[in-house]
Amino acid sequence: MKALAELLEGYQGPLLRANALDVARLDPADPRRDRLLLTGPRIAAIAASIRKVSRLPDPSGRLLDRRVLTNGLRVEKRSVPLGVVGAIYESRPNVTFDIAALCLRSRNGCLLKGSQEAAETNRAGIRLIRRALKAGGMPPDCVVLLPPEREVVAELLTATRWVDVIIPRGSDALIRYVRANSLVPVIETGAGVCHVYVEKEADLDMAVRIVVNAKVSRPSVCNAMDTLIVDRRIAPALLSGLRGPLEKNGVEIFADAAGVRMLRGYPLLRGATEEDYAREWLSLKCAVKVVAGMDEALAHIGRYSTRHSEAIVSGNKKQCERFLAEVDAAAVYANASTRFTDGEELGLGVEIGISTQKLHARGPFALEKLVTEKWIMRGNGQVR
Amino acid sequence: MKALAELLEGYQGPLLRANALDVARLDPADPRRDRLLLTGPRIAAIAASIRKVSRLPDPSGRLLDRRVLTNGLRVEKRSVPLGVVGAIYESRPNVTFDIAALCLRSRNGCLLKGSQEAAETNRAGIRLIRRALKAGGMPPDCVVLLPPEREVVAELLTATRWVDVIIPRGSDALIRYVRANSLVPVIETGAGVCHVYVEKEADLDMAVRIVVNAKVSRPSVCNAMDTLIVDRRIAPALLSGLRGPLEKNGVEIFADAAGVRMLRGYPLLRGATEEDYAREWLSLKCAVKVVAGMDEALAHIGRYSTRHSEAIVSGNKKQCERFLAEVDAAAVYANASTRFTDGEELGLGVEIGISTQKLHARGPFALEKLVTEKWIMRGNGQVR
Repeated sequence: MKALAELLEGYQGPLLRANALDVARLDPADPRRDRLLLTGPRIAAIAASIRKVSRLPDPSGRLLDRRVLTNGLRVEKRSVPLGVVGAIYESRPNVTFDIAALCLRSRNGCLLKGSQEAAETNRAGIRLIRRALKAGGMPPDCVVLLPPEREVVAELLTATRWVDVIIPRGSDALIRYVRANSLVPVIETGAGVCHVYVEKEADLDMAVRIVVNAKVSRPSVCNAMDTLIVDRRIAPALLSGLRGPLEKNGVEIFADAAGVRMLRGYPLLRGATEEDYAREWLSLKCAVKVVAGMDEALAHIGRYSTRHSEAIVSGNKKQCERFLAEVDAAAVYANASTRFTDGEELGLGVEIGISTQKLHARGPFALEKLVTEKWIMRGNGQVR
Repeated sequence: MKALAELLEGYQGPLLRANALDVARLDPADPRRDRLLLTGPRIAAIAASIRKVSRLPDPSGRLLDRRVLTNGLRVEKRSVPLGVVGAIYESRPNVTFDIAALCLRSRNGCLLKGSQEAAETNRAGIRLIRRALKAGGMPPDCVVLLPPEREVVAELLTATRWVDVIIPRGSDALIRYVRANSLVPVIETGAGVCHVYVEKEADLDMAVRIVVNAKVSRPSVCNAMDTLIVDRRIAPALLSGLRGPLEKNGVEIFADAAGVRMLRGYPLLRGATEEDYAREWLSLKCAVKVVAGMDEALAHIGRYSTRHSEAIVSGNKKQCERFLAEVDAAAVYANASTRFTDGEELGLGVEIGISTQKLHARGPFALEKLVTEKWIMRGNGQVR
């Protein structure tokens, strides 16, 4: 893997030339163009990410359980590689390298299915990966690039005998398609409709800091706040404290009737519709909901949350603990920004995404989850 | 749950009467009749199983990870209930009670979809369950029996917002249907095409004991041996030792050409076809394959195994360790019978089945796997 990082930095030429062919085929106004574009600094960032993965501990081979049965049979449960990981993704060229690096580090083989738009880039990328594998004495076929044609996806999703898990990475539409059509088990990483609930006993300065951070520090990501829920007893004070920083950052607010009243005069103010509360904004927009208290806050979250990241701000420990226990989400916070739901922040390393499903991986889906278990029994003739 | 076990034993009348109605509707020759039938001893066995589950430790609330970030954010990962478990099963009435007990013990709600044939029995069963829940001060709706009509299944499999995991329990056809049609994540428990490989350095007496046990101790279950693989150098000696015990137990043998030659005169001898090696017999039948050595044995297992339970018998430690490392299965054995792949045998308690998939649960799927994870963060104003 270090060889791959070095190759990437040393031989940028072919990769950049292949990428230029792909980019030239897209309309200059196409938003995929920027996602697809490789530059020197972007390649350096990919190489840095590969080096980071190479330094993470191998998640396979860990002893998970050990017992000796009364008949003397020695039983171990160990983590082992999943086997073959199938990844389906869109136009970001770093995904090819990220997934390959994570799979190699965890001793998995992988089948990569990138998009048609990135076909030349991915072909150049896989040549570098295979060269690095050969240089490291590994079989180059442990990373295979599938043809970019769409029909390949249907084959991949039904290859239950050959593929152990499918990881779709990209738009909601891609993930929904894979979920609906795969016979191979899927690990989904999902959208986050995330809430921050400012409870009536919140420290207002802290609440302003957390809300602003959760909304504006990186609005395009899944752990950013989508809806602010606030207790009506402190809503006027909180919203008056938020006005300045939100306006300065150009945040557009979609508020319920009570919120609209309290925010009168805020330049980017709209009335919220039912759909606005179900929206993952991924931008500098924010819904606001004024509630009578914890019960109403929990009901709102139960209805609209996608079970990603949910936060409460409150100085009341009991209220905090009730929120942490009752909210059903991958990550729940008391008195901190939702933005920490992230593999790197939590010390798990580069992540594939945030899983909002409940099986196998929940929350940051990183290297440590690219394994399964195996029961290993050593005996001396035990029968039942 | 103890209340439920007591109710079951104390009020068998209504349950037995309801069951008699169901049983009477089936043709006396229908094999489902015996599976469906409840008797006093069968009810006592169900009650005993519920008591066993009630004594297992609650798998939720366990601390799985704990870290403090450099900014002071206190991070915990804990096991929490999955939420709502949807179970789809066939005519065995014990499944209603088993699943309800496992879900209650792990604090999960459950939706039970039994078969039309068991409709009266299940309705009587759920009345007892709800009575026990009320007596214990729990909301009776945490166990819900769905109507027995088939259309309910399609609704259940697409209720992604309300159901967290689907567990199909029953025939291969049921499991395949669920896998192909569910949008809700599924935990599959699968068929076992299990092999015992007797390597050339095996202790022959031990090998005979293990092979006979793996085949005949309970041929109808998934961890029973389906194919015996034997090194050609010891095949004549092993097969001659197996003749007597296998014949005595009425085992029918499907052997390859070499095996047929060596077993000449065995009364229940057939030539094996390709399909015979892919068969989960679930009966007193057994395929035999004579191989040149480890490589051929591993290739055969790689081709026909359903990745359930695989065993080697050998006195050579290196060969054993190679087999344990290279065979991809939920449970791998050196010098022991495959029959130990079982939740109760391994001390995990009543199992829902043996998972042959790789995500979330692999091997015995028991109480401890009816949980997911939750990241719980406690801060004092941390922002990113």
